[in-house]
Amino acid sequence: MTKTYLTPLSVDEQRDAGLPESWPFALRNMVEFSELDALNHVNNAAYLYWYENIRVRYFQHVALTKYQPDDPRIVIRRGEVDYLREMVQNEDYIVTLRTESYRNTSFTVYSEVWSSGVLRSTFRGVIVLLHPDGSGRMPLPAEFLTRIQTVDGAVKAG
Amino acid sequence: MTKTYLTPLSVDEQRDAGLPESWPFALRNMVEFSELDALNHVNNAAYLYWYENIRVRYFQHVALTKYQPDDPRIVIRRGEVDYLREMVQNEDYIVTLRTESYRNTSFTVYSEVWSSGVLRSTFRGVIVLLHPDGSGRMPLPAEFLTRIQTVDGAVKAG
Amino acid sequence: MTKTYLTPLSVDEQRDAGLPESWPFALRNMVEFSELDALNHVNNAAYLYWYENIRVRYFQHVALTKYQPDDPRIVIRRGEVDYLREMVQNEDYIVTLRTESYRNTSFTVYSEVWSSGVLRSTFRGVIVLLHPDGSGRMPLPAEFLTRIQTVDGAVKAG
Amino acid sequence: MTKTYLTPLSVDEQRDAGLPESWPFALRNMVEFSELDALNHVNNAAYLYWYENIRVRYFQHVALTKYQPDDPRIVIRRGEVDYLREMVQNEDYIVTLRTESYRNTSFTVYSEVWSSGVLRSTFRGVIVLLHPDGSGRMPLPAEFLTRIQTVDGAVKAG
Repeated sequence: MTKTYLTPLSVDEQRDAGLPESWPFALRNMVEFSELDALNHVNNAAYLYWYENIRVRYFQHVALTKYQPDDPRIVIRRGEVDYLREMVQNEDYIVTLRTESYRNTSFTVYSEVWSSGVLRSTFRGVIVLLHPDGSGRMPLPAEFLTRIQTVDGAVKAG
Repeated sequence: MTKTYLTPLSVDEQRDAGLPESWPFALRNMVEFSELDALNHVNNAAYLYWYENIRVRYFQHVALTKYQPDDPRIVIRRGEVDYLREMVQNEDYIVTLRTESYRNTSFTVYSEVWSSGVLRSTFRGVIVLLHPDGSGRMPLPAEFLTRIQTVDGAVKAG
Repeated sequence: MTKTYLTPLSVDEQRDAGLPESWPFALRNMVEFSELDALNHVNNAAYLYWYENIRVRYFQHVALTKYQPDDPRIVIRRGEVDYLREMVQNEDYIVTLRTESYRNTSFTVYSEVWSSGVLRSTFRGVIVLLHPDGSGRMPLPAEFLTRIQTVDGAVKAG
Repeated sequence: MTKTYLTPLSVDEQRDAGLPESWPFALRNMVEFSELDALNHVNNAAYLYWYENIRVRYFQHVALTKYQPDDPRIVIRRGEVDYLREMVQNEDYIVTLRTESYRNTSFTVYSEVWSSGVLRSTFRGVIVLLHPDGSGRMPLPAEFLTRIQTVDGAVKAG
C-alpha cells in the first residue's frame, strides 16, 4: 500500500502535480473542514500549521533532530507569509520546502503552497539552532550543512 | 499518482493496515507536530477534529451534502469519545466511520482510530438533520437511508 | 486593575451573570473569530478546548498539579459533550466545572457553558491519575479528596 | 461586574500593565494549555490566532465591519511575525494593535505582545478591502480613514 502522504514527492510526482519546478522536499495534502473559517476559506493561521508541519517533517528527514531530549532545540525567530489566492474546502495541495540560506547558527527556509497549478501562498522562516538544554546558540551540524548546500542549494548569507 | 489519503481505503488496504474488520469508510493519516500538546502526545481535542474531518468527508461521499446553501444543515448534538491508548508524533493511523443507527431526522455515527494494530480511540456522535434554512428538523433523504441500511448496516433506533 | 478572566467568578458574579446555581469554579470568556467554523458558529471541537482549559486551571487551583515533572500525570479517558444551543461570534459566556464523583485513582468532572442565561453545552469527563513517571495509576491525594468532597460535593462512585 | 477582557484597555490600565507607550487598542488575555506545543511553550502558529482575534475585534470596534453579508470583505495579504521571547503556561499578556499606514484600498496593521513588561512578539499585516460580494477592491471608507489618521496616527504609504 502506497503511503504517498508520508513521503516526499518524487521529481516525477511533482511535475505531474503541476509544480513548475521540482523541490528537494514536497508533501501532498488536502484541505479539511476544520481548517476553514467563518469566511468559508482556509484560515490565515491554518497555513502556519501547514508550514510548521512540513518544517518538522523536513528536520527529521534531514536528520537535524529526532525530537528527543539530546537533540538540538529548533526555534523559529521570524516568519513571513504571503496569501496569494484563497484555498477552499476539499482542495488538494502540495506544500514544498527548501533551505535557501544559512549563517553559523541559523538558517532560512522557504516554502510554497500549490494547488491546481496555481501558487496560493508562500512562507519564509528564520530558524535558530540552540543547544539541547536551550543554553545558547549552536552551530549548524556538518551533515546538515552539506545537505542544504548540495541538495537544497542553500547559500551562505551576508 | 495514487492519492491514497483522498479515497476511502479498500477492504484489502484495511486488512493490510491491521484492522480486525473492514469498514464502509476508512481514511489514512499521520500525527502532525501541531496536534501534540505539552504532554507530548496528541491532544484530546485534536481527536475531535479527526472525527469531524472524516464525518465531513463521509457526508460528501454518501451525497448527503455538498456544503452548498441548498443542502441540509448537519448538526452534531452529542459526542462521546474514549481515549484508550495515547498517540505520539509521526504515528500513522486509520480513522474509520459507519452510521450505526438512525431515527426519522437523526442518526448516530461510530468511529474508531487504529494505529499499529491497536485501537487508540473511539467516537460516537448523534447527528441531526435540519432544513437548509435551519428552520427545523428534516427527515433523512431516501438515498441516504438506503445507503446506511445496505452499506453501513445501520439499524432503526428505538 | 481587576483581572476577572484570571480568577474564578464569585457567587455574586455568577448570579449576576445569570447562572441559576453557583459553582465551585467558573470562568468568563468570549467567543473569538478563530473558534468559528464554516457554518459561522463555534466549532464542535473548539468546545473541547474550552473544557480542557478550565480543567487545567482547576487542577492548578486545587493544587492537584503545577505541571512540573514531579507532579501526577492527569489523563482523560472519556469525554461526553452535549451541544444544546449554538454559540456565535462575540458572545460572552461562562464555563463552569465541579468534580462530581470519584474512585480510588480516578474522578469525573462535569462542566457547563452558559451564555445570556441559556445553557449551551455540557461536558462530563473521566480523569485518571498516573504516577509522575506514567508508570501506573496513582491514588487521589488526600487534600484533593477533601477539597472535592467538601467544596465540590463529589460523591464516591459505585 | 467588570469585563476587562471585553474592552480595550484604558491608557491607565496599559501603563499599570507595564507597556512603555499607550496604544489605541489593547486587550488582555492569558496563555491557555491548549496553546502550548510539545516544546512546552506557546506554539508559533497560536500567535497568529491572537493577532487575528485582536484584528477582528478592532475591525468591529472601528466599525469597519459587523461581519454581516453587506459588509466589506477584509482579506489578509501578508503577515510578518517576529518571535522575540517565548511565552509559557499561565502567563498573562497584553496584545496591542494600531493601523500604521494605508493606501487607497489597503492598510497595514502593527501589533505587539507584551508580558511581564517584556516584548514577546510583533506582527505586521497587510490588509486589503474587497466589496461585499468579493468582486474587487474597495476604497477605505471615510470614517475609517478619519479614525486611523486621528486616533491611530496612520500615515499615507508611498
